Amino acid sequence: MNDWGIQALGYVAACLTTLAFIPQVVYCWRTRDTTSISLGMYTSFCLGVFLWLVYGVLAEQWPVVAANLVTFVLAGSIWWLKLTAKSPRNRP
Amino acid sequence: MNDWGIQALGYVAACLTTLAFIPQVVYCWRTRDTTSISLGMYTSFCLGVFLWLVYGVLAEQWPVVAANLVTFVLAGSIWWLKLTAKSPRNRP
Repeated sequence: MNDWGIQALGYVAACLTTLAFIPQVVYCWRTRDTTSISLGMYTSFCLGVFLWLVYGVLAEQWPVVAANLVTFVLAGSIWWLKLTAKSPRNRP
Repeated sequence: MNDWGIQALGYVAACLTTLAFIPQVVYCWRTRDTTSISLGMYTSFCLGVFLWLVYGVLAEQWPVVAANLVTFVLAGSIWWLKLTAKSPRNRP
C-alpha cells in the first residue's frame, strides 16, 4: 500500500475511534446517567489522548493529531459529566 | 525532541489510553452493569482500533500497534459484555 493509502486508512480509523464517542456523549448529556462509566478510565484516557496529541505533532502524524484533538473534546466532556455527577456512585 | 524522546512519549501515551480501559473492564465484569455504556460507541471504537492497528503496521508506528492491540482486547471485552447484557436497556 502506498503512502496515500496508508494516510487514508489512518483518517478512516481516526473517524471511527473519534466519532465513536458521540453516542456516548449524547446519552450521558441527555440522561445525566454516568453510573456505569468509570471515572478512572476517562481520567487516564483523556490524559493519554492529550499525550497522543503531542506525540502526533512531534512525529508529524496528522491523522493522530486530528483524531486525538476531537477525541479529547468528546471524551473530556464525558469525564466532566462523571466528575460532576450528583451521585454517590462515583467509584468505578 | 529527538526520535527516541518522541517514541518514548508515544509509549507513555499508549500506556495511558490502553490501561485506561482496565478500571472500566473490572467494573463491568464485576457488576455486569453496562447500563450507561453505549453499544454504538464500543462497536465503532473497536472497529476503529482495529483499523489503527493495521495503520500502525503499515506505517511502522510501533507505539500505535502496541496500544491498539491491547486496547482492542480490553475494549472488545466491554463491547461483548454490553452486546450480551441481559437487560432491555441496550439503547445508548
